Amino acid sequence: MANAAIKADVEVQDESQGLEAIQKQVLELKAQLDSLSKNVAEDKLSMIVFSGDLDKVLASFIIATGATAMGMDVVMFFTFWGTPVLRDKGKSVGGKDMMGKMFGTMLPKGVDGMKLSKMNMGGMGTSMMKSLMKKKNVASMEQLIEMAGELGVRVFICEMSMDLMGLKREEMIDYPNLTYCGVAKFLEEAQNSKVQLFI
Amino acid sequence: MANAAIKADVEVQDESQGLEAIQKQVLELKAQLDSLSKNVAEDKLSMIVFSGDLDKVLASFIIATGATAMGMDVVMFFTFWGTPVLRDKGKSVGGKDMMGKMFGTMLPKGVDGMKLSKMNMGGMGTSMMKSLMKKKNVASMEQLIEMAGELGVRVFICEMSMDLMGLKREEMIDYPNLTYCGVAKFLEEAQNSKVQLFI
Amino acid sequence: MANAAIKADVEVQDESQGLEAIQKQVLELKAQLDSLSKNVAEDKLSMIVFSGDLDKVLASFIIATGATAMGMDVVMFFTFWGTPVLRDKGKSVGGKDMMGKMFGTMLPKGVDGMKLSKMNMGGMGTSMMKSLMKKKNVASMEQLIEMAGELGVRVFICEMSMDLMGLKREEMIDYPNLTYCGVAKFLEEAQNSKVQLFI
Repeated sequence: MANAAIKADVEVQDESQGLEAIQKQVLELKAQLDSLSKNVAEDKLSMIVFSGDLDKVLASFIIATGATAMGMDVVMFFTFWGTPVLRDKGKSVGGKDMMGKMFGTMLPKGVDGMKLSKMNMGGMGTSMMKSLMKKKNVASMEQLIEMAGELGVRVFICEMSMDLMGLKREEMIDYPNLTYCGVAKFLEEAQNSKVQLFI
Repeated sequence: MANAAIKADVEVQDESQGLEAIQKQVLELKAQLDSLSKNVAEDKLSMIVFSGDLDKVLASFIIATGATAMGMDVVMFFTFWGTPVLRDKGKSVGGKDMMGKMFGTMLPKGVDGMKLSKMNMGGMGTSMMKSLMKKKNVASMEQLIEMAGELGVRVFICEMSMDLMGLKREEMIDYPNLTYCGVAKFLEEAQNSKVQLFI
Repeated sequence: MANAAIKADVEVQDESQGLEAIQKQVLELKAQLDSLSKNVAEDKLSMIVFSGDLDKVLASFIIATGATAMGMDVVMFFTFWGTPVLRDKGKSVGGKDMMGKMFGTMLPKGVDGMKLSKMNMGGMGTSMMKSLMKKKNVASMEQLIEMAGELGVRVFICEMSMDLMGLKREEMIDYPNLTYCGVAKFLEEAQNSKVQLFI
């Protein structure tokens, strides 16, 4: 029996080493999995709204509200022509320089000033589209923005665009989830988003 | 020898517990890995074709057919100005209301009605581009759409756009893989796609 | 003691089998994890620059340089109207056919020829924007392209667009990381990129 017991003892030692080796492999796998997890995108949609055209901004909000309804986290980054869309037509600010005044006059003041990218026909196409949307029960831009706010869509506004166009924070719309930031902040969000769109 | 045997027995118990603990860790890793797998995108390309411009729709089909040739699954979601591009010029439908008739006349009827987004020059630029494409052996829009159908590119058409523009299903092209749907259906596809583009 | 020793011997055998089973599971997990890793996107941004408008190309380079500053790998694929933007105004080539000459004259020759997509107003809007950018310390297109080159942004130029527009390689800008390629090469990069944009 002495031999058997010795054999058992030896095997137990082997097992012990086997266990240690496997434990090591498992820990390595765990580390690898954790690092991979950090690289897998979240259920998030990030959009750059570069355009200020009625049709494109409309599309961006339909996508945004649709995505939140599906449980996705949504971030919209308004830049360039998209920026003045978020002006509040009821607010006006003074103290602008000449360029700021010029841009202030030429750029659409909020959603009412937006036009179709095609078939605007001196405003007739745009009016026609708006009345059609009403008739077909498509939510208006004002309703979509309000809905987006309630659904938790986060809105980022590009600081460089604000500066270039001479826009001031006091003239922008009231929105529950509004942040002024640069492109780096947007890219951070886009990096771990499942879906990214440039509109 | 009794001591050795007892020691072996005790160690075997330790090993036993060690094994159980590792087995538990392995099962946890497995669960974590399975849940991560569900969040990793498939080899799929999802495109929103918002534009109805010849150059952009052309680009979208060149990308689509190129991607299928690489083995990717491809979904194209036609919305807004992209929708009338898929009308069949050989089909006509009646029973449209005034708005529907107006849109029907003003919107391009299928691929022949498309124009370049730039340098259209009253149609001259568009004609020039088409003859150039022929000369340089670039596939025409008709050929590209047929190729896409054969390669299994799935085409989604936005129901809201159809409704807004007064388009009827009977006037759309025959395509092997055509679905009418809303933005939610597209987002479902985009969510697990490696690549998404808004064109 | 004989019984105990035999019992230990038997349990050691069980353990041995248990170990083997776990080892097998661990190897399966490892294989699964390795294959998943290949499907997880890299920290890379891929952009298709389709537009040749000053504002959009500007945005694409601001995004590109911003992303490299964050440590991302960046690829820009210039196609269609984006292609002539990369012509070098100081270089001229002969031996073009009539179409090539026409396109050569009509397309913007490099960054100086670009216009705003909106509010160009016969060039006045574009000049205004450029002077504003200077005043607000926003980098010019020339500076952004140089910066992108230094930061390692890789530029791809679409061969089909070069061919269609009759552009020759000798008239394109000097750029440290320039490749002429087709859409398949771009899609390869996009496939394992965290972020993709069509601009």
